[in-house]
This record gives sequence, C-alpha cells and structure tokens, in this order.
Amino acid sequence: MKEFLEETVHSSKYWVMEGHIASYIPRLATANKKHVGIGVYTVDNQYHSAGDTNIKFSIQSVCKVFSLICALKDSGLEKLLMKVDVEPSGDRFNSLVKLETMQNHRPLNPFINAGAIATIGMIRARNAEERFNKVLQILRDMTNNDNLTYNQEVYESEKETGDTNKAIAYYLKGAGILEENVDDILDTYFKICSMEAGIEDMARAAAVIANDGSIPWNGNQLISKEDTKIVRAIMATSGLYDGSGEFSVKVGIPAKSGVGGCIIGAAPNKMGIATFGPSLNEKGNSIAGIRMFQSLSKEYQLSVF
Amino acid sequence: MKEFLEETVHSSKYWVMEGHIASYIPRLATANKKHVGIGVYTVDNQYHSAGDTNIKFSIQSVCKVFSLICALKDSGLEKLLMKVDVEPSGDRFNSLVKLETMQNHRPLNPFINAGAIATIGMIRARNAEERFNKVLQILRDMTNNDNLTYNQEVYESEKETGDTNKAIAYYLKGAGILEENVDDILDTYFKICSMEAGIEDMARAAAVIANDGSIPWNGNQLISKEDTKIVRAIMATSGLYDGSGEFSVKVGIPAKSGVGGCIIGAAPNKMGIATFGPSLNEKGNSIAGIRMFQSLSKEYQLSVF
Amino acid sequence: MKEFLEETVHSSKYWVMEGHIASYIPRLATANKKHVGIGVYTVDNQYHSAGDTNIKFSIQSVCKVFSLICALKDSGLEKLLMKVDVEPSGDRFNSLVKLETMQNHRPLNPFINAGAIATIGMIRARNAEERFNKVLQILRDMTNNDNLTYNQEVYESEKETGDTNKAIAYYLKGAGILEENVDDILDTYFKICSMEAGIEDMARAAAVIANDGSIPWNGNQLISKEDTKIVRAIMATSGLYDGSGEFSVKVGIPAKSGVGGCIIGAAPNKMGIATFGPSLNEKGNSIAGIRMFQSLSKEYQLSVF
Amino acid sequence: MKEFLEETVHSSKYWVMEGHIASYIPRLATANKKHVGIGVYTVDNQYHSAGDTNIKFSIQSVCKVFSLICALKDSGLEKLLMKVDVEPSGDRFNSLVKLETMQNHRPLNPFINAGAIATIGMIRARNAEERFNKVLQILRDMTNNDNLTYNQEVYESEKETGDTNKAIAYYLKGAGILEENVDDILDTYFKICSMEAGIEDMARAAAVIANDGSIPWNGNQLISKEDTKIVRAIMATSGLYDGSGEFSVKVGIPAKSGVGGCIIGAAPNKMGIATFGPSLNEKGNSIAGIRMFQSLSKEYQLSVF
Repeated sequence: MKEFLEETVHSSKYWVMEGHIASYIPRLATANKKHVGIGVYTVDNQYHSAGDTNIKFSIQSVCKVFSLICALKDSGLEKLLMKVDVEPSGDRFNSLVKLETMQNHRPLNPFINAGAIATIGMIRARNAEERFNKVLQILRDMTNNDNLTYNQEVYESEKETGDTNKAIAYYLKGAGILEENVDDILDTYFKICSMEAGIEDMARAAAVIANDGSIPWNGNQLISKEDTKIVRAIMATSGLYDGSGEFSVKVGIPAKSGVGGCIIGAAPNKMGIATFGPSLNEKGNSIAGIRMFQSLSKEYQLSVF
Repeated sequence: MKEFLEETVHSSKYWVMEGHIASYIPRLATANKKHVGIGVYTVDNQYHSAGDTNIKFSIQSVCKVFSLICALKDSGLEKLLMKVDVEPSGDRFNSLVKLETMQNHRPLNPFINAGAIATIGMIRARNAEERFNKVLQILRDMTNNDNLTYNQEVYESEKETGDTNKAIAYYLKGAGILEENVDDILDTYFKICSMEAGIEDMARAAAVIANDGSIPWNGNQLISKEDTKIVRAIMATSGLYDGSGEFSVKVGIPAKSGVGGCIIGAAPNKMGIATFGPSLNEKGNSIAGIRMFQSLSKEYQLSVF
Repeated sequence: MKEFLEETVHSSKYWVMEGHIASYIPRLATANKKHVGIGVYTVDNQYHSAGDTNIKFSIQSVCKVFSLICALKDSGLEKLLMKVDVEPSGDRFNSLVKLETMQNHRPLNPFINAGAIATIGMIRARNAEERFNKVLQILRDMTNNDNLTYNQEVYESEKETGDTNKAIAYYLKGAGILEENVDDILDTYFKICSMEAGIEDMARAAAVIANDGSIPWNGNQLISKEDTKIVRAIMATSGLYDGSGEFSVKVGIPAKSGVGGCIIGAAPNKMGIATFGPSLNEKGNSIAGIRMFQSLSKEYQLSVF
Repeated sequence: MKEFLEETVHSSKYWVMEGHIASYIPRLATANKKHVGIGVYTVDNQYHSAGDTNIKFSIQSVCKVFSLICALKDSGLEKLLMKVDVEPSGDRFNSLVKLETMQNHRPLNPFINAGAIATIGMIRARNAEERFNKVLQILRDMTNNDNLTYNQEVYESEKETGDTNKAIAYYLKGAGILEENVDDILDTYFKICSMEAGIEDMARAAAVIANDGSIPWNGNQLISKEDTKIVRAIMATSGLYDGSGEFSVKVGIPAKSGVGGCIIGAAPNKMGIATFGPSLNEKGNSIAGIRMFQSLSKEYQLSVF
C-alpha cells in the first residue's frame, strides 16, 4: 500500500496549482499549495502514509464531526433532530437563506455552519469551557494524542472575522433553535474550528469511525455503533459541502472536509483515511484530497455504494 | 375638516377587530385594538384631529424616517447609496435572504431593518450616545416637543428580543456594509425604535416633510429641500413594508408605518398626517390607519400620482 | 424648451458607450448605441423634440403599460389584484423565484414578465387576435397613429427565444393564476412586445397618462382618471425593473422602460416624455434615457415627490 | 424471512391513516390508504413477499431511476454532469428556485423533476417514441416482464396537469440545458411516470441494481458495474426528495420513492426491496414504506453506512 500512496500523492500534485488557499484567516493564508499528504489507518491497526505527513494543520470544519459525536452522545438523535435536520443542503456552508425559508428554521444538517452551531448547543455542559473540553477530549481519545489542542492565533482570528457566524447564531437564537448563550456557543465553535492536528491523528480518528466506534488500538467502544453509523451517513450525504453528491458518486466513502485542507474518510470496517492539501477547489474542498480519495476508493474498492 | 376626520375615525373602527396587536414586546401587547386617532397638520400651520388623540405610542419603524434624515444630512445620498440601496424589496421587513443573494449585500432600502441598521451607521458620531442624540434632536425639532424621548421598558425589551436584528447587524458587519461597532449601532437602533410620541407630534413631523423640510411654525429650513424629496420618494416606494405598492395605488401619499400602530404621511405642500391604530393587518400595517389615509386621500385629492 | 432638450441630448451622449445593446433578438442587436432622442408632449398640446427623433423602435416592455390599461378597463383593479399584486419586486424582470416563494403565487406586479402575462389574461377577449387588437387599439388611440403595429420579424424572434416566458406562463397556469390558454396569452404577449413606434408616438401616449387619461388633442376621456392614477402609481414604484427606487429618488416621474431603449414618463398634469437610447445599463434601462429624465425633472421641477 | 415480512407489514399499517394520498391525478386518488405490501428479491434469486402484493401501481418518480440508467448508458457520467448535477437539493421536487439561483442553471440532481427532464434529454433517440421505448425496455429487462407498459389514463392526466413540469422544461430550454424539443421530452417524461408495475416487478428491478447491474436470474450484465454504483450513490443522497438525509441516517439503503406509493431499495450484493403503500407523509414518501425499510435494515443489517 505504501507504494500506491506514494504514487497517489505524486499524481495528485499535478492539479494543486489551479486551486486557492483559504485566506480569511492570516495563518491559513500562509499554507503552501504544494503540500500534499495522506495517511491510512486500518481497522486492524496498521498505519501507512505518504507525502508531507509532518505538517500540523487547522482542522477547521472537520471538527464538526466531533461536535456531532458529542451531541449524539449527550442528547441522542431524536432530540438533535428537533434542532437540526440531517438533510444535505445544496447551499453554501454559511448560507442563511434556507434558515429563513424553511418552515421551522432548523438548519439543514450538522455540517453547515448553522447546523454545527445548533449541534454544539446540544452538547450538555455548564459553561463554554466544559463544552469545549468535551469535544477536545473526544478528539484526543480518537487520536490517542493528548497533546492536541486549539491554536490561539487561529482562534483569535476566527473570533475577529466571525461576524457571519455571529449572524447565524443570533438568527438561530431569535428563531428559538439555539437556547444557550450565543457568545458561549460561538466560543466553543471558534475554538474547535481552531484545533490543530497532523495526518496520523486524523487517520486514527477516521479509523475509529470506520471501526464502528471501537478504538482499533485498544478495543474500547468509544462511540456506540449506532451513533457511528449516523455519523457516517451524515458524512456521506453532507460531508463535502455542496460537493457531497459528486463525492458520493465518484468516491463513495463517508467523509468530511475542512478549508484548512484536511479531508477525513471512513471506509466502514476497513480503514480511516486522512488527506492534507491546502489548495482548494471552488467549493472549498481540497483538490489533492479529492483526487487521492478517488484513486484509493477505486484501487481498494472502498465505495459503500 | 374636523367633521370629516371624525367620520373617518368612526368608520375605520369598523374593521379593527379583524387585526392583531404587535406582541413581541410586552408593552406593545397591552395596546387596545379599538383605539383610533388621527391628526392633520397643514403646511399653513393648522392642526385638526379626531379620535383617541391623547395616547402616547411607541413609534417603532416610523423612526427609520428620522435616521434616514440624519444619515442624508451627514453623509449625503451618494455615500449612503454605497451602503444601502433605495429599491423597494417585496420581502418581509426582517428578511435576510436578499442580503445574501444580492451581489454586493447592500440592504435594499433604508426602511427594512437591515437598511435602517446600515443607515444608522452613516450617521456621523463619536459614540452611540451622540448618534442617538442626533436622531432624537431631529425628532424634537420636527415636533416642537423637547420632552420626547425613548421608553426605557420598550428599549430593554427590544434589546432582549433583538436576536434577529443582531443577526442582521453581524451579517452586515461580515459583508463590510457596516463598519461601526455592532453593539453601538444596535443600541441606537433599539433606542430610536423605542421613542414615544403622540398624534400631534407625529403630524407635525410629517408636516415638516410635507413642507419641503421647512418648519411650518417658524420657517426654519431644518432639512434641505432636496433631502426631503429623497425621503418622500423612499417613503412612497418602501414606507409600508411589502404593502407599499398597494398603498401607492390606493392612497398615493408618501408614508411610513410602524408596528406600534402609527403611520405618518406627507402630502407635498399640503399637509402632514399622522394616524394611530394598533390593530395591524398581516403585513404589519395599521388597519385603521390605512383606511383613514385612503378616505383622506380621496376627499382632499392628496395622491401625488 | 427646444434648446434645453438639445443640450440634454448632447450631454447624455457622453455616457452611452459604457452600456450594452439588448441582443437576445437579432433585430434589437442592430441598434446603434449612439442614437439618442427625446420628445416632450405637453398636456396643452405642444410638442418639442431633439436628437434622433425619426427612428422607429421596438417598444418592448413599455407595452406593459398598455396591457395594464386594457386589463384595468376590462376587469377593474380589485379583480386584477386577485391575479397580480402591485408590489415592487426588487428582483430581475424574468425571475421565477418570487412566484414560487410567495404564498399565493401571484406575480408581484404587472410590469415584471410574470405579471404582464397574468395581466394579459385579465383582458377580456374571445381569442388571441381580439386580445391583441384591444391593446393595439389603445396604443393607436393614445398616439393618434393608426399605422402602428407589431414587427413580424421581432415577433417571430420573441417566439423563438421565448422559452423563459413560456416557463413563466406554464408556471402561472399550474398555480391557477392564468386561466386562459397559455399559447394564446403568450401570442399576445410576444406581439405587444414587438410593437414599433417612434418618439413622438410615445410622447403622445405618455401625455395621455400625464393628462389623467384625457387625450390632449381632442379632449376625449380615453382612460378613466382613476385608472390613470393607478397606472402612474405602478409606473412610479415598478416601472424601471429593479432600478425603480433609484429612479423615484433621482427623477420622481412615473415612468416605464423597455430593453428596446425607450422610456416613457408621465409628469401629472404637465407633460408626457419619451426618450430613446438603446444603450442599456446593467439593469436593462436606457442610460441616456435616465440621464435625460434626470435633467428634465430638475429643470422643470417634475418630481411628484 | 417470510414471517418477518408479514410482521413488518402488519406493524407498519398502524401509521398509514395519518398520511395522505397523492390526488393531483384522478387515478392516484382512488388508492386505498390501507394497502401495504413488500417484496424482497435476493441477489441469489430468492423472492419473498408479504401483504398486498397483487396490486398494480403507478411507479411515478421511481421511473427516474430507469431514465438515469438509460442516460448513463447513452451519454456517460461526464456528459450527463454537464447538464445535471448530482447534488442533493434540500428543496421540493418541483422547485424552480435553485434552477434560477445556481450559476449555470443545471438542475441539482436527476431525481428532482427538473433533473429528470434534463436526464431524459441525454438519452439518445431519434424521436419521442424511441426515447420512451428505451426506458420501457430497461424496465422490462430489469423485471423480466414484457407486459409492463404505461397507463394511458394516468399519462393523459399527467399531460393535463403537467403545467409546472412544462414550466420547468421551458426554463431548462431557455437556459440551454435542454436542447431537445420540449414537447418530445415531456411526452417521454409523462409516459415513464405513468408506467405501471407490481411489487415483484419492482423488487426484481431493485435486485438488478443491488447485484451490480447483473441480472440475478440469467447472469446478464445489463448495466455496467460502474454505472450501477453511480445510480446507487445518487439514490442514497437524493432518492427520497428532501427526506433523503433522514432515510440515509435511519435506513441507509440506496432507494427511490414515488408518490404512487412505491419505494425501491438496493442493498448492495444482498437484495432488492420494493414496498408499496399509497399513504404519504408530508414530503411525499410512503409512510408504510419508510417504516418497513427501517425494520428490514435493522433486522438484516442492510445499511451501507
């Protein structure tokens, strides 16, 4: 597999100069378009990687997988569904239009910004710190890496440039979807978006999701099998913004992308995959990441469909 | 005229039980559906009134006329147009949809909430207090009543229930339309919406607008003739939310309504008109007010069209 | 006045190269950007003109004024309002979005395509020919020109390229707004859009609207005073597509534009104005036309506001 | 399995009185809310069924699976993607809004009406008859039933009430998405929506999709494995209108529903499932169908996620 990954990294580099780097935050803007890396963590505890695997990156929207896991643990699917739907949206990740035009103003799914904000509201905690720590702990448990945390500089940038997310949160508050304190919820939202990790970390986290919620390296059932399937289903229909459908058709692996350049994917009962490549296409998904997922899915028959 | 006004008040009462009272703020919810009043202040300094003319009411969205006047004074039309368009919207007053779908995210006009918030941002002031005082002073000058101010209870309710307006303001901030501090601008917005006045006050204010910006009772040119025409044009196309077109067709007097039940109208070079009637139709406009404006327009040939 | 018009034509030419020519129909595409003309027909029967006044042009959307007049004559305002609202839209003239999102699917006003199509449905006729002839006759009566008719080549192009209008008509049919045969109604729609006239014709038509429906040159009351006021009110709020608000603010004359380059305006009890200039701004309104209306309104104090 | 199916049918009947019957076509309106049936056809050629299995029903939107298969065969995925996207929509099946607001006016996926109409345009044929016959032949091959055809009465009703679909088709034509003759394409669309079949037919068709395109009863590779995976992916993300996401989460079987009450589902390499139950929920999906799919998925671990 190592050889195949090397080849995949190599051929995906061909396309990265066409894309753009997320630039709304200074630190993200310093990323190098040419960086491409991949890590694969199998459910039987093997790890393979290739390319630029030593870079720490901002996980950005990939964090929405972890807030969803926490909310499912704390509130369960049925309660969550009262605040957030699980329908793919066909809209941009930061759109407010659907919130307004849908009858009950529920965000369409936990992976658009509005849905992630509402989902964070369903994590039970006495305050913002406890809420953030719950998400951070899940991430640490899923990566076997207790050093992971958020990047202070990115977090401060997120807060500074977060007006549209504030708009979304206040809209949800006004519509009765968000019952918690807006500033508290946003604080957690900005912090989890600012969490940093490396390729192996994210491949391990994806492997837990691939392994039905059981941790490959110690056998602990961290997330219930049922919740894990829910997470995978939402990743499959809504994980790549308004590019989710094409990804399902061409790759068919439940996945989640972030504008920091990371994509994680969970091939059920086979492997967790993490790719990094900060050059993004017009939908905000990593160009190299999509190409590597496509090759991998074809080579190892990973599509769930 | 007195007699005609009495009749008009009387016959408009017939319809008020069909409507609803604005209830998002406790104090507004205590209004009496049956209250109906009208005041007419002519440009040659006559005042006539009928009905329940001694009630103080919350002017609510009628305040957007005064913030528009201040912004025109301070920034001029061309600068204002860079932040707010002057197109009627066909949408609800608190809609965010158009903000998102329009190319440059400018609010469609100064009378929808988004537009009023952006307009307040164009009033030059060192802080929130000075900004509010500018609007209050215009109102006092236009009413010849230095006792007018905002109602503390209403103001606090506006703040408490103001999440959708906060959402709008943060959206504008995120889109680069609003450059000022969001909390400062909203503080002014909530305060001016909470300003209280009576029928004669509002009839006088309307008379200044009818009289090309010159104060009927002392001849001072408070607002430039040019700005006054701009204000009247915007009132005519956008003054009654998404009921503005029908009001133009059936009444034809530049006017502005508020959910507190007040409508002011300015028949150019003839008279200022203020009506009060807290029972609202489904578009948020005073039922009795619209009917009285319709009778008055017909009787005195007040349509500008 | 002649001299002022000459100057106005001259200075408006400065801007015409910036615009674009309507090109969806071959014949329209052959227009000359530099052509600019103006005609003014006063209610006391004077005619003044300047510039390129001998050109015949396609009246395009200006025809919607005449279909509105016929529908008001045949069905009255209240019946018309059951099928078409009179609210300005803030959307493009051929938008379908609002049709779908508004509760009862009524087109927002008689001057967007959907509204014009629904309006034509309210002209009483046994067949398409009779319906078209009613509109043509009004145009002939208002212009004192029995030679006017539609251009066969333009009509055929309209039909060929009319798919979006067909989409609109079938949508209205499906929503129960349009009860007549779709092909019949569209046939009339395409024919009236293809009617050709000259500057003096259109200035005369505008003069009838300015003169409260009475024909200046023979005193006949062709349109009731009440209907004329309705037409002027709708022109004022919706006559220049999504540029109507700015035109109200800067010009203040009830007007209607067409992509053929004509704008007609009716200054109540003063004059009818017609301008021609096929170079259009991004909203589809004649660049020279808007500038000439602006000068004229300022010079002769024609704003109704 | 037989016993389990019987139980499932029985317990799903509990909920059917809450729903509604599709009534826009007279024949559909005569359906009996209490009818519930299920058929399961395994890839190893076993058939089990329970409930009301002898009813012939109108397959309605389920037909969009077969037109998609034909279009993929004739034009391939890349060409199809130039005309239709494969993104789930989050909108109603007959919405026009997205067509207008998306940059290139491509319908969002082959299963909303607009997308199905565009998809039919990608089936290569010299005329409407040939185009329809291609879809019919696929259906016959996939069901092993050469008697299947469309119902004349339903077809005529579809045509009569098809104004919104005509609107969509003309919109696509105007936008350059549909290049074929509108009437021809709609004729095929209305005919395939009117095709009738029974439970076993549809279970067999689903089994072909479950079996990677190979026919279980004769081993012929009717559809390429690659195309079959594409079809299953689109079914999974967009098969149940704006209820697709929740179905993915709760069932996880690629499926397609129709307002006639049928749902087909393809559990890869396991079985094809067809359910019938004309009582629909507010999203237009069969109430009993969804419940039976849910039980079956849980019992036999059929979720792909």
